Amino acid sequence: MEFIENILGRLIPVKIEGRKLRPFQGAFADDGGGRKRVTPPIPVSKPGQNKLCSLREAIEKSGLKDGMTISFHHHLRDGDYVVNMVVDEISRIGIKDITLAPSALFPCHKPLIEHIKNGVITKIEGSMNGPVGEHVSYGGLPKVAVLRTHGGRARAIEDGDLHIDVAFLAASSADDYGNANGVDGASAFGPMAYGYADAMFADSVVIITDNLVPYPCAPYSIPATHVDYVVVVDRIGDPERIVSGTTRITRSPTRLLIAKYAAQFIKESGYMKEGFSFQTGAGGISLAVTKMLGEIMEEEGIRASFINGGLSTFAVNLFKKGLVAALYDGQVFDRGVIESFRNDIKHVETPMTMYANYHSKGCLVNRLDVGFLGATEVDVDFNVNCNTHSDGLLLHGIGGHTDVAAGCGLTLITIPSYRKRIPVVRERVTTVTTPGETIDAIVTERGIAINPQRKDLIERMKGSNLPIVTIEELKDKVEKITGKPEPPRVKDRIIALIEYRDGTIIDVVKEVEK
Amino acid sequence: MEFIENILGRLIPVKIEGRKLRPFQGAFADDGGGRKRVTPPIPVSKPGQNKLCSLREAIEKSGLKDGMTISFHHHLRDGDYVVNMVVDEISRIGIKDITLAPSALFPCHKPLIEHIKNGVITKIEGSMNGPVGEHVSYGGLPKVAVLRTHGGRARAIEDGDLHIDVAFLAASSADDYGNANGVDGASAFGPMAYGYADAMFADSVVIITDNLVPYPCAPYSIPATHVDYVVVVDRIGDPERIVSGTTRITRSPTRLLIAKYAAQFIKESGYMKEGFSFQTGAGGISLAVTKMLGEIMEEEGIRASFINGGLSTFAVNLFKKGLVAALYDGQVFDRGVIESFRNDIKHVETPMTMYANYHSKGCLVNRLDVGFLGATEVDVDFNVNCNTHSDGLLLHGIGGHTDVAAGCGLTLITIPSYRKRIPVVRERVTTVTTPGETIDAIVTERGIAINPQRKDLIERMKGSNLPIVTIEELKDKVEKITGKPEPPRVKDRIIALIEYRDGTIIDVVKEVEK
Repeated sequence: MEFIENILGRLIPVKIEGRKLRPFQGAFADDGGGRKRVTPPIPVSKPGQNKLCSLREAIEKSGLKDGMTISFHHHLRDGDYVVNMVVDEISRIGIKDITLAPSALFPCHKPLIEHIKNGVITKIEGSMNGPVGEHVSYGGLPKVAVLRTHGGRARAIEDGDLHIDVAFLAASSADDYGNANGVDGASAFGPMAYGYADAMFADSVVIITDNLVPYPCAPYSIPATHVDYVVVVDRIGDPERIVSGTTRITRSPTRLLIAKYAAQFIKESGYMKEGFSFQTGAGGISLAVTKMLGEIMEEEGIRASFINGGLSTFAVNLFKKGLVAALYDGQVFDRGVIESFRNDIKHVETPMTMYANYHSKGCLVNRLDVGFLGATEVDVDFNVNCNTHSDGLLLHGIGGHTDVAAGCGLTLITIPSYRKRIPVVRERVTTVTTPGETIDAIVTERGIAINPQRKDLIERMKGSNLPIVTIEELKDKVEKITGKPEPPRVKDRIIALIEYRDGTIIDVVKEVEK
Repeated sequence: MEFIENILGRLIPVKIEGRKLRPFQGAFADDGGGRKRVTPPIPVSKPGQNKLCSLREAIEKSGLKDGMTISFHHHLRDGDYVVNMVVDEISRIGIKDITLAPSALFPCHKPLIEHIKNGVITKIEGSMNGPVGEHVSYGGLPKVAVLRTHGGRARAIEDGDLHIDVAFLAASSADDYGNANGVDGASAFGPMAYGYADAMFADSVVIITDNLVPYPCAPYSIPATHVDYVVVVDRIGDPERIVSGTTRITRSPTRLLIAKYAAQFIKESGYMKEGFSFQTGAGGISLAVTKMLGEIMEEEGIRASFINGGLSTFAVNLFKKGLVAALYDGQVFDRGVIESFRNDIKHVETPMTMYANYHSKGCLVNRLDVGFLGATEVDVDFNVNCNTHSDGLLLHGIGGHTDVAAGCGLTLITIPSYRKRIPVVRERVTTVTTPGETIDAIVTERGIAINPQRKDLIERMKGSNLPIVTIEELKDKVEKITGKPEPPRVKDRIIALIEYRDGTIIDVVKEVEK
């Protein structure tokens, strides 16, 4: 296999499984290449169409065959029944060699491992959170997996790099013509933002719902214009695991300290001013920072123009108090958010292209002032790993991490300096997910390291009471506690590509020795 | 010039100005042709883009050149300032030979005639209501105009048949990134449904607004992902003429009688039952039918699933009373509707593809039970003319007429039998806009003629008190009053093509002698 070094010094194969790879050249090096999008065949729409059918009929009518690609969204999170249900049916029909292209997989998708073993699934293009990732890490998947960011996945679909033959999209409410939403019904989950590009660009689109409503299903997130079949099932998921009843903030003193440092850093950085914006997530630290920012905003009378996320009740509360003018919503973490999303016209849906597609005329991550993100590892070049653990196991998806970092004015990584005696701040991350050039500071309980590229920030934070350190100092501090980390024990075989949001390859993941 | 007869016996040129024409073969003969859509080049989205500029800068940056195509939506109706403003500026820059592709032109666009005379505009692909159409009728436009239905225009744009180089889209509210809506601001007009396909498929998109709001403009009808430039102007239009303060119903006894017959016919036809749906328009008869249907619904306790339209306060009132479950909104006729559209989640926007694109996987006209439409002429084959007057002058656009007729269960043409001593019911319409196979009955004050294809309807209406007649009887009755009509005095030159919603040519319009 021939390799080429990308701009971060990571070795990328020139070609893999027939696909010519482009090495990562920098966060904004790609210019779109002058290409045009690839679109599905032109359909026709005559009166009297009947789209209602069983799952088996939908699979058969869609023309799904060996070697094709199917896709799913992950709005049902760890409560999803749809992926397993569809792959089970495909397996029963006897179709093999399928590429699975979900926006993300969760622990509930562990049964897919059996379908990998029996040859139904031979490739995965999508995020893997948990057991499927572990199985892939140990070499269990015949073909090389591809991981993309939220924006990168939408880009790949729209550009034709990820061609979807059949998209199976769960809806908590749909009519018999395929108009679908995620806000009505017992399995309500919020926006359908992860599935929008799939609906627009897949050759065939199947809506799967457990709540068939009379035509027209209004409001709609996916319009009937892009739907071929509608399948009604008993349950699309387990409501208790789709969204939480409530979102809990971290109680760990270490994590609360990190959150406090981050909120203080944001305040002192100058980014926190009237009309600023920020991105939140579901992690315990992220929720705590959101809450603390809200408290500072309330004290100081500062209002934000918008919060973007993955939204929790913490964000919605700031919105309801009038501290935030609008909410951009890509996914919902707790039940209280759904009502706000459904009913408030300033709480709007953000399909992934709107959120973060680099190949658009303007995605909203570019308008974010502040983002605070997690990581499994960071290194002295400020590169961030969100995908693998330090033992090399591929256990997490990318999410919007890389997208936000690229777009945001101030990107903070908020992480404990070590976990279970394994250092998080390291010489070199096991896997690069997000390039250091897009990261502004690493905030840990043992100090805050500012990227030396951000001379303005370093200057501004002089005289701050916050524990500002260099990244090397931080690494040394941590290693004094943890010792030097062991490198992961990996084989030569590449099991996954980490694709940057522009379609270039930023890193590869290798098979882990058992 | 070589001609071929289409299925209605109209002579269609085989080729015109280099475009090979496909003759109309029947309402549902087209199968999409297995083609794929043509999409604009892939853009990139980096932080720090500045889209705000003057109109002149936007035109220059867009790369607009001689021979290119520009487009507009007509949500500002007869109050629009944007089309004239843009074409004036193009003229000042010195660009010539432009194809104008608005969704529709109104009397306020009369100044464009000067730009046709001076060579700035050489072709029009779009509806012409009034003076521009008259100018074109008399041979004033160098190239052959193309008229399309609402759904047909969206189809042509998406299929790549109508390639738009630069779309100039008026917004009553927008932010500096291009998120835009029509519901906020002094020039509010409602949905941006006519401009949606333009925004998605034009190479370059310019938002023109008189109400720049802080980012993010929420809600949005057009997302920033598809906008290149944002231009702020003093006024996009005259609010008094964009929408009416109130919508007035017809007071003409003849027209009220027609409306009464139509409402009664709908009731007796069997189409009016729990969960039925209908399409409304802005015409006086259409409003009267809507009001009368509402009264019957209230009396009999029948609720509709949805109304689609062009919506007026009459439709919104039925919705507010709970007689209609949802409103599908493509354009707004009076001010009261905008508030409902902005605030009610069951009152949803319907981009033209969702409304009526035959080349989609399902457009909503196919789900309509009842439509009542106008006409300038009808004939004994039930063909309908909405474009030309009996003197041959091209004075009206198609709107959604043909789309609704094709999709609807029961399509009624509600018209006076003659106007100013000119018969409306004729042997042969001057121009075919909508084919008779998609029309179910002609409702006039002198009788109702049912299409003989609809044996079921004829059977059902036996014993009705309504004045059911044959179309020939109706024509004879009318001609007894008006005498036989004179044919229009036209030359050989074709000045416009009437394109059916599938892209085939249903008729041509010839130059009228002065």
